[in-house]
Amino acid sequence: MPVGTQATVKGLSQRDLWDELGARIILGNTYHLFLRPGHELIRNLGGLHRFMSWPGALLTDSGGYQVFSLSGLRKITDEGVTFQSHLNGDTHKFTPASTVDVQVALGSDIMMVLDECPEYPVSHEYARVSMARTVRWAGEAFTHYRQWMDASPTRNALFPIVQGSMFPDLRRECTRHLLELDADGYAIGGLSVGEPRPLSLEMVEASEPDLPRDRPRYAMGVGMPNELAEYVARGIDMMDCVLPTRNARNGWLFTSEGKVVIKHARYRDDPGPLDPACGCYTCRNYSRAYLRHLFQAGEILFASLATRHNVQRYLDIMREIRESILAGEFPRYLDTLRRGIE
Amino acid sequence: MPVGTQATVKGLSQRDLWDELGARIILGNTYHLFLRPGHELIRNLGGLHRFMSWPGALLTDSGGYQVFSLSGLRKITDEGVTFQSHLNGDTHKFTPASTVDVQVALGSDIMMVLDECPEYPVSHEYARVSMARTVRWAGEAFTHYRQWMDASPTRNALFPIVQGSMFPDLRRECTRHLLELDADGYAIGGLSVGEPRPLSLEMVEASEPDLPRDRPRYAMGVGMPNELAEYVARGIDMMDCVLPTRNARNGWLFTSEGKVVIKHARYRDDPGPLDPACGCYTCRNYSRAYLRHLFQAGEILFASLATRHNVQRYLDIMREIRESILAGEFPRYLDTLRRGIE
Repeated sequence: MPVGTQATVKGLSQRDLWDELGARIILGNTYHLFLRPGHELIRNLGGLHRFMSWPGALLTDSGGYQVFSLSGLRKITDEGVTFQSHLNGDTHKFTPASTVDVQVALGSDIMMVLDECPEYPVSHEYARVSMARTVRWAGEAFTHYRQWMDASPTRNALFPIVQGSMFPDLRRECTRHLLELDADGYAIGGLSVGEPRPLSLEMVEASEPDLPRDRPRYAMGVGMPNELAEYVARGIDMMDCVLPTRNARNGWLFTSEGKVVIKHARYRDDPGPLDPACGCYTCRNYSRAYLRHLFQAGEILFASLATRHNVQRYLDIMREIRESILAGEFPRYLDTLRRGIE
Repeated sequence: MPVGTQATVKGLSQRDLWDELGARIILGNTYHLFLRPGHELIRNLGGLHRFMSWPGALLTDSGGYQVFSLSGLRKITDEGVTFQSHLNGDTHKFTPASTVDVQVALGSDIMMVLDECPEYPVSHEYARVSMARTVRWAGEAFTHYRQWMDASPTRNALFPIVQGSMFPDLRRECTRHLLELDADGYAIGGLSVGEPRPLSLEMVEASEPDLPRDRPRYAMGVGMPNELAEYVARGIDMMDCVLPTRNARNGWLFTSEGKVVIKHARYRDDPGPLDPACGCYTCRNYSRAYLRHLFQAGEILFASLATRHNVQRYLDIMREIRESILAGEFPRYLDTLRRGIE
């Protein structure tokens, strides 16, 4: 899922995303939209889909992750989290119920419960207390959500989030508690917070056996291109990450032949496409030399063309994975991928 | 003609420009392309059309205007102009012949002669000496150009540039000298250098009666939306200006109902399109509230959507003018426009 933090995937129009790249679901960040332009404004304008002219599905996070990583002074209590806006320092409070309300105002198709996402590393004791709070908050969010759902003509999903830092026992305990909520899907959070990559995969493995097979599982905030299949191999259905879009803007491009750091002098007069195997607008129409020129000159068009390509690359990988699963060839696909990396 | 300074119209893909907006000719800046990525690199990659993947026509300026307005220390001699790059301070020299060579390397369809573009105001004496130099340079450029043309399989135009600051007698004298070159078209330069608007129009009027009726006339660096018809009324066929693109990025939008400064709080929750009479992608898909949000949030998508609209507005105005001329109704069109402004 491409990340559209502030009601836009940076550098892409909705037509680029929907018609050209074939994205069908994107992510919005509740924390950012709550602060600017505000969820009430978006509700009054018909919801986030209409506000940003997006015909596909929208998933929103609960804002918890951004509160912990972006905002200034913040204070966690059993009730929720009080924090200061990174834009103007105003004080706000998120509770398990209020973040559901904000996401309902946005009209999100897949909402997330408020969770506490601990930094890495933390002690087992801290992780245990924090996990218990996340479980309690998830219960409060679901109580509020079910009341709203009973009165609502629409059907929106709410996913709880498995936490437990890097401790498999806590991950398993958290998962078992959250199963009682009988949710439409489950997220695994607290990844990509600075831990070594093998540990991220191990935490997914700890939760996976207990998660219901007929509900989507969502690994939040991952991953690098060659990691996507590893997550899928561990039972993950959904992922989001800023890597394809953020790295694109910084001139770091993912191709079927590996990474291309476009500022390198070797691309200065390279007439070839960024990725000969790619069918995106950028690769069909422009050379590496032109892309490098745009990057060096600081041109806006670079961000747009580079983002198109990187998002296409990610979606192509996911399409390959889906096709190999349908063809019964995923184990071979994964094996080839792993050999290529070694 | 939209301005594509560094081999890109800022914020627009070539598809936006060609397929969607219907632009058929854009401008490239010789000074910028000479410095970065360099005309030899562009020549080696097949010329500017191919380098930037532009299927339409390209007009390039001679670089003179930018040398005078952007570069550091510069020194004018009878031979040409020596200047320092605004990028790294390197010293370069443009001569009437060398700027033709640079534009030939770029593969420009319509090239411009090197001219001196005096600031405003200057004395009649300075303007006279400068104009005489521009005329002499134009002669040297044409001598070089015709030698190249004799050996070239392609046909590229070279336009001389009428100068003479704000003195009608010098403008007329310059025009008469340049007519001897029997060029494919003529440009009027030295406008939009800080003079009052009526003076710009008066300078065009001074040159117009002598310019051949069967060749295009190009007013360089103009103008505001409501001025376009005024230039056409004075015999101008071609114009270029950074206003639609630069103002777009700054949140200043041109609509059929007048200007919209998108940051104003009145647009905060405005669900209507930027311009109800406009058929561009931006107006068909997004609200003023969304555009304001993107602008306030500093999102790249704003520049792209705003630029699309402003370029569409300019091209729509030119289409209206062409249609009114073909229908024999241009005097009435102009009259209506002038009443609307009063």
